[in-house]
Amino acid sequence: MNSYVIYLVPALGILGLIVMAVKSAWVSKQEAGDANMQELAGYIANGAMAFLKAEWKVMAIFAVITATLLAYSGTIHEVGGREIHSHWIISIAFIIGAVFSATAGYIGMKVATKANVRTTQAARTSLKQALKVSFTGGAVMGLGVAGLAVFGLGGLFIVFLAMFADLGANQIKTAIEVLTGFSLGAESIALFSRVGGGIYTKAADVGADLVGKVEAGIPEDDVRNPATIADNVGDNVGDVAGMGADLFGSYVATILATMVLGQEIVVRDAFGGLSPILLPMVISGIGLVFSIVGMQFVRISDDSANVQTALNIGNWASMILTVIASYFAVIWLLPEGQLMLRSTGFDRNGVFFSIVVGTIVGAIMSVATEYYTAMGKKPVNSIVQQSSTGHATNIIGGLSVGMKSTVIPIITLAAGIVLSYYFAGLYGVAIAAAGMMATTAMQLAIDAFGPIADNAGGIAEMSQLPPEVRERTDNLDAVGNTTAATGKGFAIASAALTALALFAAFVGIAGIDRIDIYKANVLGGLFIGGMIPFIFSALCIQAVGKAAMDMVQEVRRQFREIPGIMEYKAKPEYEKCVEISTQASIREMMLPGAIALITPVAVGFTFGPEVLGGLLAGVTVSGVLMGIFQNNAGGAWDNAKKSFEKGVEINGEMHYKGSEPHKASVTGDTVGDPFKDTSGPSMNILIKLMSIVSLIIAPYIYGIGQ
Amino acid sequence: MNSYVIYLVPALGILGLIVMAVKSAWVSKQEAGDANMQELAGYIANGAMAFLKAEWKVMAIFAVITATLLAYSGTIHEVGGREIHSHWIISIAFIIGAVFSATAGYIGMKVATKANVRTTQAARTSLKQALKVSFTGGAVMGLGVAGLAVFGLGGLFIVFLAMFADLGANQIKTAIEVLTGFSLGAESIALFSRVGGGIYTKAADVGADLVGKVEAGIPEDDVRNPATIADNVGDNVGDVAGMGADLFGSYVATILATMVLGQEIVVRDAFGGLSPILLPMVISGIGLVFSIVGMQFVRISDDSANVQTALNIGNWASMILTVIASYFAVIWLLPEGQLMLRSTGFDRNGVFFSIVVGTIVGAIMSVATEYYTAMGKKPVNSIVQQSSTGHATNIIGGLSVGMKSTVIPIITLAAGIVLSYYFAGLYGVAIAAAGMMATTAMQLAIDAFGPIADNAGGIAEMSQLPPEVRERTDNLDAVGNTTAATGKGFAIASAALTALALFAAFVGIAGIDRIDIYKANVLGGLFIGGMIPFIFSALCIQAVGKAAMDMVQEVRRQFREIPGIMEYKAKPEYEKCVEISTQASIREMMLPGAIALITPVAVGFTFGPEVLGGLLAGVTVSGVLMGIFQNNAGGAWDNAKKSFEKGVEINGEMHYKGSEPHKASVTGDTVGDPFKDTSGPSMNILIKLMSIVSLIIAPYIYGIGQ
Repeated sequence: MNSYVIYLVPALGILGLIVMAVKSAWVSKQEAGDANMQELAGYIANGAMAFLKAEWKVMAIFAVITATLLAYSGTIHEVGGREIHSHWIISIAFIIGAVFSATAGYIGMKVATKANVRTTQAARTSLKQALKVSFTGGAVMGLGVAGLAVFGLGGLFIVFLAMFADLGANQIKTAIEVLTGFSLGAESIALFSRVGGGIYTKAADVGADLVGKVEAGIPEDDVRNPATIADNVGDNVGDVAGMGADLFGSYVATILATMVLGQEIVVRDAFGGLSPILLPMVISGIGLVFSIVGMQFVRISDDSANVQTALNIGNWASMILTVIASYFAVIWLLPEGQLMLRSTGFDRNGVFFSIVVGTIVGAIMSVATEYYTAMGKKPVNSIVQQSSTGHATNIIGGLSVGMKSTVIPIITLAAGIVLSYYFAGLYGVAIAAAGMMATTAMQLAIDAFGPIADNAGGIAEMSQLPPEVRERTDNLDAVGNTTAATGKGFAIASAALTALALFAAFVGIAGIDRIDIYKANVLGGLFIGGMIPFIFSALCIQAVGKAAMDMVQEVRRQFREIPGIMEYKAKPEYEKCVEISTQASIREMMLPGAIALITPVAVGFTFGPEVLGGLLAGVTVSGVLMGIFQNNAGGAWDNAKKSFEKGVEINGEMHYKGSEPHKASVTGDTVGDPFKDTSGPSMNILIKLMSIVSLIIAPYIYGIGQ
Repeated sequence: MNSYVIYLVPALGILGLIVMAVKSAWVSKQEAGDANMQELAGYIANGAMAFLKAEWKVMAIFAVITATLLAYSGTIHEVGGREIHSHWIISIAFIIGAVFSATAGYIGMKVATKANVRTTQAARTSLKQALKVSFTGGAVMGLGVAGLAVFGLGGLFIVFLAMFADLGANQIKTAIEVLTGFSLGAESIALFSRVGGGIYTKAADVGADLVGKVEAGIPEDDVRNPATIADNVGDNVGDVAGMGADLFGSYVATILATMVLGQEIVVRDAFGGLSPILLPMVISGIGLVFSIVGMQFVRISDDSANVQTALNIGNWASMILTVIASYFAVIWLLPEGQLMLRSTGFDRNGVFFSIVVGTIVGAIMSVATEYYTAMGKKPVNSIVQQSSTGHATNIIGGLSVGMKSTVIPIITLAAGIVLSYYFAGLYGVAIAAAGMMATTAMQLAIDAFGPIADNAGGIAEMSQLPPEVRERTDNLDAVGNTTAATGKGFAIASAALTALALFAAFVGIAGIDRIDIYKANVLGGLFIGGMIPFIFSALCIQAVGKAAMDMVQEVRRQFREIPGIMEYKAKPEYEKCVEISTQASIREMMLPGAIALITPVAVGFTFGPEVLGGLLAGVTVSGVLMGIFQNNAGGAWDNAKKSFEKGVEINGEMHYKGSEPHKASVTGDTVGDPFKDTSGPSMNILIKLMSIVSLIIAPYIYGIGQ
């Protein structure tokens, strides 16, 4: 074995973490503003930590139970006379995955709650400086997630290979199977972070708006609103930690699925036979390096510069450089001549083309999402026009835009699957996903920058800083809204390809050679699977509704019982509202979480792998559709509302904030809130988690239902 | 061949048509009220006929083109060296199917536009008499649809058997293949009726409400509103003719799919080897007879009686009697011992159990739909409560109820598929659908009664009749809302099972033995298929939005340009509004129609039958989910709004019509309008039509993509 390659991967991970630490220290060093600003930022930071702690408690209980089950499963070495390459160490891998995922969320949240107030302070000087602080904050998050993933996977793989060295032919098989525990741990935490965080952020947001803006008539982010701190905490909890855990999970699962498929490819002597297994990890490492490079391009010269352009240049630079470098990695690692996976032949050029396909799919998904949700484009304008005839037509317009927005992404995804398979079989589908995910660090940096800027604006508003400060943060925030939408496009695309890669890996391990929906029970599985994203979405939306109602009651109570709030004479009890959002999110994430975890186990052990395969296909197709529909409808509604801030022309008449059409657009925005920040993004986790659970139980359900 | 059985089927169809004629004559004989009422009813009847004529023109062009293509396809007797049992006569079968479907719609519309004003007149006397007139009107529609279907299929089968007698072994194969043309004709017309009618009715409804109720402040069905006649026409066009054509299509397609599968079962001497082919037709004939019997149970003694109970008794009577009689039909027609279909063995008891399963599935689907959409039940109440915090929470509540309402129907459907397959293989799945559809005449009678009562109420309002008249028609209308919802549950269930039966038939004829979603291109097909219901829904919803805006402009223009409308001094130009709805619906149904018809052809000929199979599975699963979601969300919003008419308690306070929560509930109702009456019910046609087109092209795409 050319051992240096295997050590290269964790080394690149460590490099990422070192750069992260440097950037994080730089953020901490920046000025944090006056005492008032620091007090407000302190409330947000404390609220965020309070949520994390409450969440960790629940997750710890869940992790102990799951780890025990996994450890027990590791004692089963035979099912139906068939050898299973399991080991109790999988429970340790699971715990490490969970801890890494939680750590990634913690790092992101910590830096975001520092970067927010420092961005506000920087915005007092210039837009250039404000962008630098907020984007560096995002970069810390991105590098933390990618660095931990690459280091964790690469490092554990080395450890497990050494640990199982005496298993001979089964050494690699067992090492990879145990490694799936790492992915399950990561994805489980992602579930709680994404769903819990999504409920938190929207309960606070909707609750704050309903009483604050509508009843009390005070602006958004007003310091007198008791729920305003919870709202700002929510941005960090949902959009930073939730998104980070989601992409951490996707990143790990994609690489792992490619490794599972890669081990089936026989390459004889190339790097000890490990090269198809190492390739996805190496590509991730490369992507991490070029993400760091790309981050250097994100800078502007003065206040009039285009922030979006700066981000785009950085993003494209990292993607293009990663694709080019991937070519050399493929040529270096994979041997010439034909490679075979499950009787499909391909060569290393095909593998490279698949990586290119994956990158292009990710880019098109992002661009399509932007088109359907950006201000000034036709879809959002159509909703603006439909706001003129009232609330109902605004809603109809948004729903219709959301549904229509599924067309291009789905055709792109389908074409991506067919093409990457054409180039390199199932390995091609998996490596396409890995290629797409390679620049996760950069994607996440761009993505996490948005909520930091949003928070910075909130702090500026609450501290009543001069208007040019708020103008600068608003400029960043507007760009952040677009990057949030494109980030969601990227996240759902990555989840879809990850789920498919896991799906392919599952089929191999479960010992079936087809998933034939012409069979009645498999078709039944497809139907049930298709339904799950609907009930999951319904539960998430309903949870936001319920929690928002609790929030409304609490805010009303404070306005009633604490005299002097409206006159700035008394401070609202922010922590009560933080508490409500925290408790509600923890409580309400249980049932959807249980559905995602238990359904595949129940179906798999009752009906066997082929029906479970049908179920997974149903969940994936329906989940991707519902995800895109809800994300984009929500994004479009949000920007339709924002369009009124600058004024819009409807039938030759100008309309502004406060007009009747604007009120209708606020309704759409409120409906869109749980769509785009709770149920929509949760679809990613749902489809990935169900796939990874299926992959874990695959060896144990071999032969059932045949 | 025991020829008497084969003649029994069309004979039962003729029996149904005779009873229909008697009932229709009875309706015509009833008093039609005073001159004012008759004038209004005349406007509605003329508007409905104007729409039908405009629609027929478009359909005639479409029918000629399609018939030409079919006739051409009939000249192809070999594809890739493989014999095809086609014949140009299929184009004639297609035309007959189209004409029969149009006739069924015409009969229903004709009687409905007579029964409406006669119901109003009867309501001046008693509820008992009003129910009798309106239900008899519905029964005419039900018997017309079922009678034409049974007569058409049974009669044509005899004709085609005789026509192809010299083909020897291929006689039956060719006869059935040509018969699929009949089904295609029926389903194509259903597409235009359902989608066109759905756009018509909601464009008029939304348009009338937006200006009338909201801007001008006049009540619903006010004679001063220029769009009110178009609104009442819409009830007939969408809910009567559209629903009738939809169920006519399902009915025919289900029987046909069972016949296609039945011909593969070898029964040797039983009824000339035809018994598995005859069975679905015989069961339909039995269902028709017992529907007539069940209709006799629908009667009440006085004004205080429960109308819903009367309908339920009739419905259950016809279902139970049909199931019992089916047992004897199965025993009579099918031989003892094992039957085989595509290497799955079963016996005749299994076939009977499958029929029972189908009936139960239909019943559960209806009951579940009722639960989720009925006033006073938890789901609707939750929306009522959520209306208290405004428009947005009302919308969130409705969307969440709609999504949740998919769970029970989908589990029921999946269980139904698995169980009926368990009992009698693929033939079981198909015959389950046929069993469920057997009492279509009764289902449709109950369903068509609703819009007749709705119209009757409208005429009472417009003619300013005494309040007790309106009270009686409102009583009927309220029941009609529930039956409309349960009818939709039945329609989507029947469409789903029909699509599956057609799917199974398609697989056989296309010469594939699996649809393996583990293959990349089949999975791609599944994704694309899953997306189609989303774009189809979006186009339908958008069409309603656009057409409603046109309507709003026209109503505003009339109020502005015709002085004296508001003082009852001048008559509005009703026919202008009718014209707008007609033109809009015809124009806007083109693109969704084209998607449904062209996609399977394009995919089938490009990628072959297995990918097309994946596409169909995607369309079916996603279409059923989107259908249930949209139907039930719309129904629940509607009844949440209606709940305010009697007053509702929210947080200990009573709220009535005109209150803020009521206004929020009106928003939900308006959003729900296109959901429940346009896009939702269109899903039925979409999935059936794509399946039947695939079945027709199946022989020609044999071997492509293998």
